[in-house]
Amino acid sequence: MILTVTLNTALDITYRVRSLRPHTSHRVTEVTERPGGKGVNVARVLAALGHEVTVTGFVGGATGRSVQEKLAVVPGLVDALVPVGDPTRRTIAVVDELSGDTTQLNEPGPTVTPTQWQAFQEAYEVLVPSVHAVALCGSLPPGVPVGAYAGLVRTAKAAAVPVLLDTSGEALRRGVAARPDLVKPNAGELAELTGSHEPLRAAQNARRRGARAVVASLGAEGLLAVTPEGHWRATPPARVHGNPTGAGDSAVAGLLSGLVEGLPWPDRLARAVALSAATVLAPVAGEFDRAAYEELVGRVAVTAEVSAA
Amino acid sequence: MILTVTLNTALDITYRVRSLRPHTSHRVTEVTERPGGKGVNVARVLAALGHEVTVTGFVGGATGRSVQEKLAVVPGLVDALVPVGDPTRRTIAVVDELSGDTTQLNEPGPTVTPTQWQAFQEAYEVLVPSVHAVALCGSLPPGVPVGAYAGLVRTAKAAAVPVLLDTSGEALRRGVAARPDLVKPNAGELAELTGSHEPLRAAQNARRRGARAVVASLGAEGLLAVTPEGHWRATPPARVHGNPTGAGDSAVAGLLSGLVEGLPWPDRLARAVALSAATVLAPVAGEFDRAAYEELVGRVAVTAEVSAA
Repeated sequence: MILTVTLNTALDITYRVRSLRPHTSHRVTEVTERPGGKGVNVARVLAALGHEVTVTGFVGGATGRSVQEKLAVVPGLVDALVPVGDPTRRTIAVVDELSGDTTQLNEPGPTVTPTQWQAFQEAYEVLVPSVHAVALCGSLPPGVPVGAYAGLVRTAKAAAVPVLLDTSGEALRRGVAARPDLVKPNAGELAELTGSHEPLRAAQNARRRGARAVVASLGAEGLLAVTPEGHWRATPPARVHGNPTGAGDSAVAGLLSGLVEGLPWPDRLARAVALSAATVLAPVAGEFDRAAYEELVGRVAVTAEVSAA
Repeated sequence: MILTVTLNTALDITYRVRSLRPHTSHRVTEVTERPGGKGVNVARVLAALGHEVTVTGFVGGATGRSVQEKLAVVPGLVDALVPVGDPTRRTIAVVDELSGDTTQLNEPGPTVTPTQWQAFQEAYEVLVPSVHAVALCGSLPPGVPVGAYAGLVRTAKAAAVPVLLDTSGEALRRGVAARPDLVKPNAGELAELTGSHEPLRAAQNARRRGARAVVASLGAEGLLAVTPEGHWRATPPARVHGNPTGAGDSAVAGLLSGLVEGLPWPDRLARAVALSAATVLAPVAGEFDRAAYEELVGRVAVTAEVSAA
């Protein structure tokens, strides 16, 4: 069992319109809805890979009920979301049929009260000891203290459960200091954390800040891993074209599944890169193309990196 | 008791953003939600005026549950909505904080099956004999036959219950032929029905097509009434500035409430114009400003119109 935490869950709605023109009226030709938030996306990919996964975080209101109804039909996925008073946020992606471009509208999400945050922490403490790994994913909703992830990292470490952190900004800075087993920043998040735009140097800096291992996602260039066991670069066999939404979450699912299966680092990285590319290639944003994944996973180039340190 | 029919109910969502720019990401700063669809808007205004009102039409899915939860807290309003399989549509109004302009995204709405349409007609036949007036409002959702309103008009007339029709296009054309007591087209709908852009001439044409009375809403110029009892123009005391969303629905509520209270036509028209103007002036789209209504209603100019016929 793997536990994913999504403090700011979402109902992700995609609208297709012919062409978005501000200050006019549009008929939406197609509506799709799915549960979202980074940890929920990670959980869906883990479940598709055959792992049992528990989802926690906050959920509320009518949009929250929609999220829970959709999670209930995912095989292998257990809903341990904690209720909050305000409704779960919607994100709306408006896709132009003509250009394929997307316009995004993101609701702010519910405000979490101190009592609700306390209730979540207690639920989390009960869940953690029985799982094989924890992933802490995404932004913090209003009301949750900025040091939240640091506390959740410490709880996992106290239970000797490996913990992955995938967030940004101050929440990442504080969380890293609590010594998580793995962080997965993208290039921008890593630069913001460390002040360095050179990924290898920045990843080494992030390790000195407390992360046991750093896997940086570098877009089309794949992944850079800086770990106590060695440094690797993993790159897809060819540049893939499509929708990058959820590619980072699929990489997290690949890393976590490889961790709990006890795979060596190069195999974990190959899986993460292949899942990420197969997500870009999938027709539905955030899903992954299983056939593409199976074809790609054996063709990812993983090369050991000579340390500059 | 007044019955309003909204075959295509909606969950109306308003987002405030700083400025909508296509193909970028936006943080929504404020989210408001209310039950929508023209008949629902009419019912809300009738309830605010102190009338008991029953709402029927179709409702489904999580969005439908939100609509019903919000209707449940309106004093004097009875929910007699009929379930449908697909979810109730959302409409999203994105308001630019900088310009005040609105961009509209409208979902298509559920597809109604023949069985569901039959179930609605049976429920409607049970409701109609016990009410004092019926309002049939808005567009037809996919699956409902284009002659739907004609049948609903005939059912009301067979029960000797006054029936108002507020729709457009072919649904209006067919509905008018079934001889409703009142239609309330706007200038564009009236021109489309009759081929005439001269409102008085067009209203007289609409009467010849079957409507017992025609009240045309002419925007800032107020209302034009062509009835067996006489012809009137009703105009607001001054041009009002604000959001015209729902102004036509408030006019319908004014006409209906005046009808069931047995008011003479000039008083019904003054009420309809004042409610319409007070809706334009309200800070929330579709609500009306009660103080403005009470101040305006005595100052609406209602003048008898000499017929050109």
